[in-house]
Amino acid sequence: MAELIGNLLVAQSGGPTAVINASVAGVVQEAKKHACIKGIYGGMNGILGILNEQLMDLRAEKDEVIEALKHTPAAALGTCRYKIDFKKKPEKAAKDMDRLFQVFEAHDIHFFFYAGGNDSQDTADKIHGEAIKRGYEMRVIGVPKTIDNDLPHTDHCPGFGSVAKYNATTVMEIATDVSSMATDDGACCVVEVMGRGAGWIAASTVLAQRAPGDAPHIILLPEIPFNEAAFLAKVKSVVAKLRYCVVVVGEGLKKEDGTEFSADTTRLDAFGHPVLSGAAERLAEIVYGKLNTKTRSVKLGYAQRCAAHYASATDAAEAAACGEAAVRAATEGKSGYMVKIVRTQQSPYKWKTDLQPLKDIANVEHFIPRDWISADGFMPNEKFVDYARPLIEGETKVPTEGGLPKFAVLEKKQLPKTLGKRS
Amino acid sequence: MAELIGNLLVAQSGGPTAVINASVAGVVQEAKKHACIKGIYGGMNGILGILNEQLMDLRAEKDEVIEALKHTPAAALGTCRYKIDFKKKPEKAAKDMDRLFQVFEAHDIHFFFYAGGNDSQDTADKIHGEAIKRGYEMRVIGVPKTIDNDLPHTDHCPGFGSVAKYNATTVMEIATDVSSMATDDGACCVVEVMGRGAGWIAASTVLAQRAPGDAPHIILLPEIPFNEAAFLAKVKSVVAKLRYCVVVVGEGLKKEDGTEFSADTTRLDAFGHPVLSGAAERLAEIVYGKLNTKTRSVKLGYAQRCAAHYASATDAAEAAACGEAAVRAATEGKSGYMVKIVRTQQSPYKWKTDLQPLKDIANVEHFIPRDWISADGFMPNEKFVDYARPLIEGETKVPTEGGLPKFAVLEKKQLPKTLGKRS
Repeated sequence: MAELIGNLLVAQSGGPTAVINASVAGVVQEAKKHACIKGIYGGMNGILGILNEQLMDLRAEKDEVIEALKHTPAAALGTCRYKIDFKKKPEKAAKDMDRLFQVFEAHDIHFFFYAGGNDSQDTADKIHGEAIKRGYEMRVIGVPKTIDNDLPHTDHCPGFGSVAKYNATTVMEIATDVSSMATDDGACCVVEVMGRGAGWIAASTVLAQRAPGDAPHIILLPEIPFNEAAFLAKVKSVVAKLRYCVVVVGEGLKKEDGTEFSADTTRLDAFGHPVLSGAAERLAEIVYGKLNTKTRSVKLGYAQRCAAHYASATDAAEAAACGEAAVRAATEGKSGYMVKIVRTQQSPYKWKTDLQPLKDIANVEHFIPRDWISADGFMPNEKFVDYARPLIEGETKVPTEGGLPKFAVLEKKQLPKTLGKRS
Repeated sequence: MAELIGNLLVAQSGGPTAVINASVAGVVQEAKKHACIKGIYGGMNGILGILNEQLMDLRAEKDEVIEALKHTPAAALGTCRYKIDFKKKPEKAAKDMDRLFQVFEAHDIHFFFYAGGNDSQDTADKIHGEAIKRGYEMRVIGVPKTIDNDLPHTDHCPGFGSVAKYNATTVMEIATDVSSMATDDGACCVVEVMGRGAGWIAASTVLAQRAPGDAPHIILLPEIPFNEAAFLAKVKSVVAKLRYCVVVVGEGLKKEDGTEFSADTTRLDAFGHPVLSGAAERLAEIVYGKLNTKTRSVKLGYAQRCAAHYASATDAAEAAACGEAAVRAATEGKSGYMVKIVRTQQSPYKWKTDLQPLKDIANVEHFIPRDWISADGFMPNEKFVDYARPLIEGETKVPTEGGLPKFAVLEKKQLPKTLGKRS
């Protein structure tokens, strides 16, 4: 195979994480080692920016700024939830695809890296397929990213370790608070965390337990239908024993009929999912109303997925390595794959990157196995703990200025547009 | 004056902070230097535990555990919201006071330190007065503590610097998230923070601003009545300019008629205040409903007041110093004072401790001066920033184990009870 020479384009998609920028840093730093890669470009706001020909020159960024991306949260290139939907909107999708390849051609892009979750890997797969169909020589590699940890085939997703570390720390700290306030009247706190379909994030707060009686005392997972009576009985018994109870709930908790516990069907997001809000607030009302136990709620929301100030060093290193591996794979002629993480040893924890065909990833959701959860459904068990514990090891070093974190700020030098406006 | 010799009792009261244990460490470490102080005891759950004769022996704790209290959040001795209320319940209050002095006598306690906010300083003042009335030789010194920063006469309260640092960091991180997700459709996030009466906590998130356009873009303070039309116009103009908007709201935001924006009058706390919840959630509904801008909410709740993993080193040092100063004052014969922090130099920031009569503190609430807030009421100005900035400097060093913070765990060796049950 003749060596492919051209420009590289990297973009980010979907919800941010604390370490998705580390993957971009990995892509850029690795790309600079390969002579076949000329321009190194970033797409602004994912596919949406590429469609609008909004590209930035990442070679124009200082080396130290690229390195600082490794401790900078959220998507420094910008992200989007835009979907090229061949099923529901085939005409628009076909038009989008034409436009994407016009942009690729106009900017001589032959290496494309897309960091994202299920939907984004689907987009990457479609671009890979289109490139073959169109005879356009292109190497497309997906970079895994999602706090939700719901991608299949990879041991875990970059982004998950950091949200797990931050949330488990927060649960530990909240437990010191609630327990120190607890008198014989009892006290309860419900902490709502992200996770619409899979409960990996909620489950990971189990890592806060070090000794018997430690919080969290109940974890409500989207995988286990909510049973109010069993839940209240459990809260009651925990409060009777410890005087306090810390409950963690994944936002996507389901009722027994399969509908979402806290879905507000009047509000839909860009993918048509109902906006979820207030699972903790509703649970707090139930506990207070039925048990008369003082109950407060915490909703970490966006705070949890961008908490770089206490990110997992393991996670950040893996995220960067996934970016590097993607570039290596592409320069070796691979296309149509997602980088995955393979656990090669449990203790001490060792891992490596490998590749999985994109078609195996797209739109497949990976749930917590039932046998990783206690029989009563309220707590992940030792299998889960063994799996998750290594992923939160180590603290990212974040420089500070005036007592607050100092994050990378990209210049975002835009490439001149050569095409007309997107119609 | 003949030297007073006896045992020391320290207790914690009210809502926890990230550094209230640092004050206890300061008390214990300083007490060990004074021969006149024999036993060093801790009251469990504040006044409530003392009434129940639940005392622990702090000399039985290892030195390194006491030192570790400086990075351990919440009230390690336990806390309470119990109030000795001579106004509303004079008979019960008189009975409580009798019982307290029985406990003091039974355990030869002549040095009493109470770390807390307004209500707790009031309790300390009453105990000081009663001791004089009863001719019981007792040195009572209050130690300031409150994330709310609403105590008068002290430059600021230990606990405030840490919540300010954590919340400002969280706002910075949320801003990276929301801004990276923002497309032309606009995006908004409302972050709810604590602060029922005074808006110091909400205001302190202004420290997250480093460059023009930085979040937070709007801060809603309890001191400034909420004007929905002005608020929506401001959100709209920020989104039009930046494509996103981060709003911070203090939970105690007031309507123009003086009632609380989000008060649930069906639920009262132990002091008879209505339980507040959901200011952010309600604001998010208003923004989405009126402007059709995608809006998410975050409610930090308990997470913010016990976030030792990112506490302010300045705050922790001051909290410890307040505990030390309290013991020194008592051994010098002082009683009926609260330790306060005096700012002796603005730049570089310098401070010292001093004393203020407890009667000046009790039940007085300190608000943000109006001229520290912008004319439109949506942002603290440079005067506030100059005041608050030094308080968040430095990061407490928190050891970790398995990727999570390692906090002090007290043995809590209980003193034998010598009295009968409290009637």
